[in-house]
Amino acid sequence: MSQQNLEALDVGAIREAYPILQREFDNGEQLVYLDNAATTQTPDPVVDAMSDYYREYNANVHRGIHHLSQEASIAYEEAHDRVAEFIGADGREEIVFTKNTTEAENLVAYSWGLNELGPGDEIVLTEMEHHASLVTWQQIGKRTGANVKYVRVTDEGRLDMDHASEIITDDTAMVSAVHVSNTLGTVNPVSDLVDIAHDHDALAFIDGAQAVPNRPVDVAAIDADFYAFSGHKMAGPTGIGALYGKEEILEAMDPYLYGGDMITKVTFEESTWNELPWKFEAGTPQIAEAVGLVAAIDYLEGIGMERIEAHEEELARYAYEQLDAEPGIEIYGPEPGPERGGLVGFNLESVHAHDLASIMNDHAVAIRAGDHCTQPLHDKLGVAASARASFYIYNTKEEVDKLVDAIDDARQLFA
Amino acid sequence: MSQQNLEALDVGAIREAYPILQREFDNGEQLVYLDNAATTQTPDPVVDAMSDYYREYNANVHRGIHHLSQEASIAYEEAHDRVAEFIGADGREEIVFTKNTTEAENLVAYSWGLNELGPGDEIVLTEMEHHASLVTWQQIGKRTGANVKYVRVTDEGRLDMDHASEIITDDTAMVSAVHVSNTLGTVNPVSDLVDIAHDHDALAFIDGAQAVPNRPVDVAAIDADFYAFSGHKMAGPTGIGALYGKEEILEAMDPYLYGGDMITKVTFEESTWNELPWKFEAGTPQIAEAVGLVAAIDYLEGIGMERIEAHEEELARYAYEQLDAEPGIEIYGPEPGPERGGLVGFNLESVHAHDLASIMNDHAVAIRAGDHCTQPLHDKLGVAASARASFYIYNTKEEVDKLVDAIDDARQLFA
Repeated sequence: MSQQNLEALDVGAIREAYPILQREFDNGEQLVYLDNAATTQTPDPVVDAMSDYYREYNANVHRGIHHLSQEASIAYEEAHDRVAEFIGADGREEIVFTKNTTEAENLVAYSWGLNELGPGDEIVLTEMEHHASLVTWQQIGKRTGANVKYVRVTDEGRLDMDHASEIITDDTAMVSAVHVSNTLGTVNPVSDLVDIAHDHDALAFIDGAQAVPNRPVDVAAIDADFYAFSGHKMAGPTGIGALYGKEEILEAMDPYLYGGDMITKVTFEESTWNELPWKFEAGTPQIAEAVGLVAAIDYLEGIGMERIEAHEEELARYAYEQLDAEPGIEIYGPEPGPERGGLVGFNLESVHAHDLASIMNDHAVAIRAGDHCTQPLHDKLGVAASARASFYIYNTKEEVDKLVDAIDDARQLFA
Repeated sequence: MSQQNLEALDVGAIREAYPILQREFDNGEQLVYLDNAATTQTPDPVVDAMSDYYREYNANVHRGIHHLSQEASIAYEEAHDRVAEFIGADGREEIVFTKNTTEAENLVAYSWGLNELGPGDEIVLTEMEHHASLVTWQQIGKRTGANVKYVRVTDEGRLDMDHASEIITDDTAMVSAVHVSNTLGTVNPVSDLVDIAHDHDALAFIDGAQAVPNRPVDVAAIDADFYAFSGHKMAGPTGIGALYGKEEILEAMDPYLYGGDMITKVTFEESTWNELPWKFEAGTPQIAEAVGLVAAIDYLEGIGMERIEAHEEELARYAYEQLDAEPGIEIYGPEPGPERGGLVGFNLESVHAHDLASIMNDHAVAIRAGDHCTQPLHDKLGVAASARASFYIYNTKEEVDKLVDAIDDARQLFA
C-alpha cells in the first residue's frame, strides 16, 4: 500500500451519480448506506448503459443476422473481453457469465466436482467460507463421498496457514477459499493458499465477491484455477456474476447447463459442445446485465482501483478505531491495515445485532445484522449474529460518525 | 377465439413506448422488428421500473433490517405472487425465479431427474422440442440410464397424439413438451398431453417460453407439474425466467443450487433447507429483473392477453397468406388459426435462409435465420436452416408487407 501517493477520492462528486444516496426517510434523516458488502449502489452511468441497451439495441445474441442482433452480440461478447482484462485473465475463453458468485461456485461443483470427486478425495475449505462455497462443496462432498475439511481461523480472524499446510495433502482435490471475508473483513493470503494447493496437485477456487469491487485483482498473479465475483457488489447490476477459469481446465470440463447456444451439433441421440466460454452459457444470457457490468468496470477503473482500495482501508481504519474506543463493542477480524477489507463486523454487549440494526435504521443508517451467510463461523465466534458496516466509494468519515452516534443511542436505549 | 369481440390493439399508441422502433438504419429505413420469438422489445414502463429500482430502493433482499432492504425484499417477494397470479398458480411457493427458461428446465432435470431417474425409466419429449429441453433431458438420460423417446411431428407440423399415446407408458417418468413451437408456430394440445402423462403417473413439464408472452396461460387448467417461461420474450428484461412447479412436487425435491438464502441452518457438517420458493433460489437473486418482470406483466395485462393473442393470430394469418401467395416459398407448421402462434417459419427456394435474412437486413427488416435451437426438427424437415418472422404487439400488417417486399427483392437478386 502506497496510500500516501494516491489522490483521495472526491466523494462529493462521486455521490452525485447516486440519486438513492439523497433519499431522506420519514424523520428527515438522509440515508447513510453502509450495507455495501451485501450490495453496492448503482451509479447513473451503469443504470443509463442498461436503459440505452433496451432503448437502442436490445436483441438476442449470437446467430442473429440483423443489425440489432449484431450490435447486441458484439456488446455481449466484448463484455467477456472487458472482464478478462479487468482481472488479468487471458481472454474471453476464460470468462463465463453466471447469475451470481453462488452460481459460479455451483457450476464448478456440478461440472468438475460431480465428475472428478470420489471417496478418498478431500475438499479443503476455510472456517470463514460463505455459504455459497461451504454448502455447495459440503453437499457435493456428500454426493460423491469426498471428505470436507476446514482451514482453522485464528483468534485474530486470520487463516491459520500452518493448519492449511497440514490439512492440504495429496488427497486434496479442491481448495476453495474467500479472498476477503464478508464477516471478518480479513484479506486472505490467497496466493499462498493456491501455491499450497498446487504443491499437492489440487485445484484452487477463490471467491472474490468481496475483493474485486474494492481492490486491484490479478487472477494470473494469484494463479487461481477458478475465481468468481458478482456485478451487484461492484456498482453493477443484479443478475450477473462472472466465473474465471483457466482455459485448459474449462476446456476439459463437461458442460453444466444444457440448452441453446452451448451446443455445436444436436441430433435426437446426442450433442456436441460449443467452444469456450459459450459451452457454459446455455439459453439467452444476461445481455443487459453484461452491458451494465462493463459500464461498472469502466466506472470503477475511471476512479482507479488502487484509490478505491486506499479509500476503503482508510474508512475501515477510522470505523475500527471509533468503534474500538466505544465501551462494550466487540469487533471481529484483524486490526486495521492491508489485511482488512472495507468492512467492520461487531456486536454491542447485551444488545442483539438485529435490535442494533433496527435502531440504526431509525437514524437512516443502513447496516446489516445477521449471520452474513457464515453460520458456522458465527457458531465458532459464539454468537448467533453480528452487525456489519461495510463501505464503498461514496461513504465518508461523517457517515461513520453517524454510525457511532446511533450506537450510542442504542446503548442508552438498552441500558 | 372470439376475436371479433375484442377491441383491436392501438398499435400506434403502443409503439410510442418503444424508442428502439424509431431507429433508422444507414439507408434511412426504419426498423421493422420481426424477431420477437428470440426476444421482444422492452417498453419504457419496464425500463423505467428497473431504473427506479436502482435509483430509489436498490438493496439486497431478505434478512435486511434497514428500509431499503425491506422495500427491495417486499418487491422481490411480491414479484413471485404477481407471476403466480398471472399464470394461475396457487401462490409464491410455486414460483422459482431462474435466469431463463433453459435454467428452469435444467433445475428440474438436476434436482428431480438426477435423483429420480434410472435405467428402465423413460423420458418422452417431442420432435419439436427446443434444445433447452431436448439437450437437457437427453444428457440427463445418458447420466441416469433413462431412455429418451420423441413424439412424432406430423407433416402438417402438429404433434401426432396417437403416437404420444403409444410411447407414453407406465415406464414414462417425465414428459416435456413445448406449449408453442418456436420453429413451426404450432400451439400444442398440452392439456391433453399432460392428461396422458398423468394417466401413466408420469410428470409433465411444459416449456411456455413462446406461449406466456402471447396468450392467456392457466397452469392449473393445463394441470402441468412444471411450467417455465422467460422475461425477455414478454416485454420484460433479460436475466430472468420463472419456473412454476406444483407445491407438493417442489417440496419433495432436493435443492438445485447451494448457497446463501436457500438454507435454514448450516454447520460445518450439514445443512437444512429454507421453505419454498427460496429453497431453489441460492445467492443474491435477480432483484431488478424481478421488478422489471412485474412491470412487464402489468403492462401486458393492461393491454389484455386475449387481445394480444388475437392480434398475433391476425398478423400470423396475414403473413401466412401473403407468403403462401408468393412463388417458391415453403412455410413450415400448421395453417393459420388458433393452432398457430404469432410466428411464421419458411424458406425461399434456392436461397439460403441466412442470405435471405441478410437481404432483409438491408431493408432494415429484422428476422431470424438458422436452426432456432431445434436442429433435430430441421433435420427432419430436411433443411439446415429456416427463416422466421415472429410478431408482437407493436407489429403491423404494413411491416408484413415490407417483409414480403424484401423477399421479392431477394428472389430477384438470386434469380
